[in-house]
Amino acid sequence: MTFNSDGISRRSLLSMIGAVAGAGAMYSAMSTMGLAQGSNYAGRLDLQGDVNGTRVLILGAGLAGMTAAYELRAAGYQVQVLEFREKAGGRCWTLRGGDRYTELGGDTQDVTFSEGNYLNPGPWRIPSDHYAVLDYCKRFGVKLEPFIQVNYNAYLHNTASFDGQPQRFKEISTDFRGHVAELLAKVVDQQALDADVTEADAQLLMDALKRYGALNDEMEYVTGEASSAYRGWAVPEGGGTTGRPEPSEVHPLSVILQSNLWRNLTAGDNLHMQSTIFQPVGGMDQIAQAFEREVGELITFQAKVTRIRHEGNTVTATWVPTDGGEEQTETADYCICTIPFSILGQIDHDFSPRMSGIIDSMYYASSFKCGLEFKRRFWEQDEHIYGGISYTNLPISLISYPSNDYFSDGPGVLLAAYSWGASSYQFNALPPADRIEAVLDYGSQIHPQYRDEFVSGVSVGWHKVPWVLGCYGIWKDRDADYMDATVMDGRTLMAGEHISYLPAWMEGAILSALDAVERLHVTVTES
Amino acid sequence: MTFNSDGISRRSLLSMIGAVAGAGAMYSAMSTMGLAQGSNYAGRLDLQGDVNGTRVLILGAGLAGMTAAYELRAAGYQVQVLEFREKAGGRCWTLRGGDRYTELGGDTQDVTFSEGNYLNPGPWRIPSDHYAVLDYCKRFGVKLEPFIQVNYNAYLHNTASFDGQPQRFKEISTDFRGHVAELLAKVVDQQALDADVTEADAQLLMDALKRYGALNDEMEYVTGEASSAYRGWAVPEGGGTTGRPEPSEVHPLSVILQSNLWRNLTAGDNLHMQSTIFQPVGGMDQIAQAFEREVGELITFQAKVTRIRHEGNTVTATWVPTDGGEEQTETADYCICTIPFSILGQIDHDFSPRMSGIIDSMYYASSFKCGLEFKRRFWEQDEHIYGGISYTNLPISLISYPSNDYFSDGPGVLLAAYSWGASSYQFNALPPADRIEAVLDYGSQIHPQYRDEFVSGVSVGWHKVPWVLGCYGIWKDRDADYMDATVMDGRTLMAGEHISYLPAWMEGAILSALDAVERLHVTVTES
Repeated sequence: MTFNSDGISRRSLLSMIGAVAGAGAMYSAMSTMGLAQGSNYAGRLDLQGDVNGTRVLILGAGLAGMTAAYELRAAGYQVQVLEFREKAGGRCWTLRGGDRYTELGGDTQDVTFSEGNYLNPGPWRIPSDHYAVLDYCKRFGVKLEPFIQVNYNAYLHNTASFDGQPQRFKEISTDFRGHVAELLAKVVDQQALDADVTEADAQLLMDALKRYGALNDEMEYVTGEASSAYRGWAVPEGGGTTGRPEPSEVHPLSVILQSNLWRNLTAGDNLHMQSTIFQPVGGMDQIAQAFEREVGELITFQAKVTRIRHEGNTVTATWVPTDGGEEQTETADYCICTIPFSILGQIDHDFSPRMSGIIDSMYYASSFKCGLEFKRRFWEQDEHIYGGISYTNLPISLISYPSNDYFSDGPGVLLAAYSWGASSYQFNALPPADRIEAVLDYGSQIHPQYRDEFVSGVSVGWHKVPWVLGCYGIWKDRDADYMDATVMDGRTLMAGEHISYLPAWMEGAILSALDAVERLHVTVTES
Repeated sequence: MTFNSDGISRRSLLSMIGAVAGAGAMYSAMSTMGLAQGSNYAGRLDLQGDVNGTRVLILGAGLAGMTAAYELRAAGYQVQVLEFREKAGGRCWTLRGGDRYTELGGDTQDVTFSEGNYLNPGPWRIPSDHYAVLDYCKRFGVKLEPFIQVNYNAYLHNTASFDGQPQRFKEISTDFRGHVAELLAKVVDQQALDADVTEADAQLLMDALKRYGALNDEMEYVTGEASSAYRGWAVPEGGGTTGRPEPSEVHPLSVILQSNLWRNLTAGDNLHMQSTIFQPVGGMDQIAQAFEREVGELITFQAKVTRIRHEGNTVTATWVPTDGGEEQTETADYCICTIPFSILGQIDHDFSPRMSGIIDSMYYASSFKCGLEFKRRFWEQDEHIYGGISYTNLPISLISYPSNDYFSDGPGVLLAAYSWGASSYQFNALPPADRIEAVLDYGSQIHPQYRDEFVSGVSVGWHKVPWVLGCYGIWKDRDADYMDATVMDGRTLMAGEHISYLPAWMEGAILSALDAVERLHVTVTES
């Protein structure tokens, strides 16, 4: 269990086991070592061999590009990175007071949040099974703090149920689980499940359902101590003469089902959302900045790539400085291209027809985020909601409460909308000021304090982000196309979240870069 | 929704509503104000009226005693506090390197944990509905950080199941939920529930079960993408050529049921354990120290109360300094006694026969905690467990991983045992060094790294803590006795966690003190 602490590396050991005993044994060993069922990150690279001054050109200084730059330089390669923006990180991006953001179409927003407040327009959570991200954070000194995904005191809200009044997560989740357990217990009791559950198991199942559903001794889910200990009390448990609690009323199954509020009950059970989750202290771009500290000297910023050509054993990118100046070229032996396919398809390139087809067929998801700053943390002060997420059927989709600076007096920023698909188009079509108004209107249905406490806001519609034109890549036919997109095309390997099975996640971007780097290195050292 | 931000206080408003429109309306208003179903803490006290130099003697400088001292002094009372120990806080207590602890029987332990590491032998979590604790923390500047109760990557362990191998919480929880959903879906489909579920609701129930149970399109809980997206993959989602995941094998229902691992699935769903939960940065006694900063000057430490007598309109406590010296007395107009009944019953007092009977009938729960320091955070580094709790059927009952200093290199302290009842007696009966050995033996069955990484440990068996002789008070017959224990007996009111419906919780101690203070104040100002 301590293989990785000294001597032979975990990666080497796994490779060895894989080579000698096959993949089954390797996965078994991975499991023993606590690796399986997390990220497929197999530990830090340790590339050996003479790379003979091989030059690698990396297009894009997002996390994929910077990972590749960091690892290739460490292995002895001559690395150059071209980046369109004035800073590194790509979608690993944070907006703070003082930032200015101009979207496609020219609308510009000046962020005026107070010191310490921010919006992460892109990634905002780091699952604890995203080992590559966590390891680079550790290496580069990025401090992480827990992100609260599930808060039982946050709301589930549906305009068409409970008179539009938001309900506490704890009440709906307890009621749903309770009714499900009671229904199943009833049929177990009637021996209606004999074919599926043995007699011995039936008693265990009853015991389990009683506990799981907070049922009473009669195996009923009803108003009383058992249910209130989970869903909360009408009069809470207290001290002294006013200590005795009164149970809260459970909602009937039919009310729970018709409310549709059960749709978000498992939001924290999905592998990527399971506790424990993290966020960087101070904003997601702390990761981008940490990478930039490592490889910044390799990056040419404000370089807009206009042409990619393969000739003989080289690849050449033509680029123009976005702040004016002459067209320039950069030639290398190999290229790792992390430019999103949504952008790459618009660049003059000479990739193979197969690769071109894949590039052109990839659709980029639409997404919208809005951050609103409020004078005070009314969600904490009035409603006792500390971190976590409220879900709604309104176009804002959710409200996420900050997982930092709890109990502070100062202004706080809510992620006040995080929409996908149709809802996001609706917001994206509006000018920035109108989006804020719409988000305020919607949010006021959940938190009536919104209008009184509002200070300022900023929004990002990903289809209007000039350097990506969408949120993440969606395959037209992943089964048919994915592997073909990973092959070296001329002298170029593709990398980025789109070349992964973890789309939209930073982990996918880093893993795809590591895979490209390893394969490039094999090509170079074996040629 | 913003009543409490200015003008009339929440407490005053609630009292007014209660007086005018009755308790129902008050609770309704409380609910609107976001208070109901949390603590019954009704906001900060604002005691008005002339107290005429009334003297109050407070016995015990735990949280109940210090709350009473703080509030009574603010209202103008002359307050004196007698405390047995050399410091304040009572069970709100933290052990760190440099601390020495001598238990009943004379066994002494010297704590040698590294800087920053600690064990909270008593309370260790602050639920976010414990408004009184949170409010005093806010007032006194105690910084809080999230406590991770549920970690899907932590273990469920039973020596008699899965060959004694610990299982990840995410696997067992997904499998249990999936099988339950599948079984119920089957009977819904067979229309076996017609009496309980209408036809319209049946379709909603099927939709809900599919989502809740991670069922496939055939409403089955089976190995595949749907289940692996929750329980984890055998080969995880990755990037580049190795990106494609492979589903993990689900466990059959029978295996899940017979494993008994379902017993701890809802540990984080109980009202007091629901996310978001907090802990003070640096240890629970940061709260004790904060209170002591406020009222320390009122406290006489190392004062062992030996006698309590009521004469005329006064109450007198006789005490001896535990560091030697003459017996002394302290006389006051009223007394708030927070001495645990386990101790109070052994003190020479003149409480009424009814109160004496209650004092003598209260049993104090047995509990055992052990903290072990390890050279490195192997649970994070090898097993990717960041905070949270593993549960086991072994006598150690659980292992809790630190919810702070994640990813740090240095030594870390695990709460390596937290036992109740029979298991705790088993540990308590051993000398301290043998307890550590036993805990190491047990824990090694879950974390084989234990022996290699162990540095030092400390344990507290609450029945041997000299100043409380148990963990918390258990009523022999709460329904019959509770209210009688709250009445003023002579000139004395009882307070502490035992005089609450939140036994063992700091919130219960504080709420009982606030209730006693308010009633005392009514008595004084109306007399």
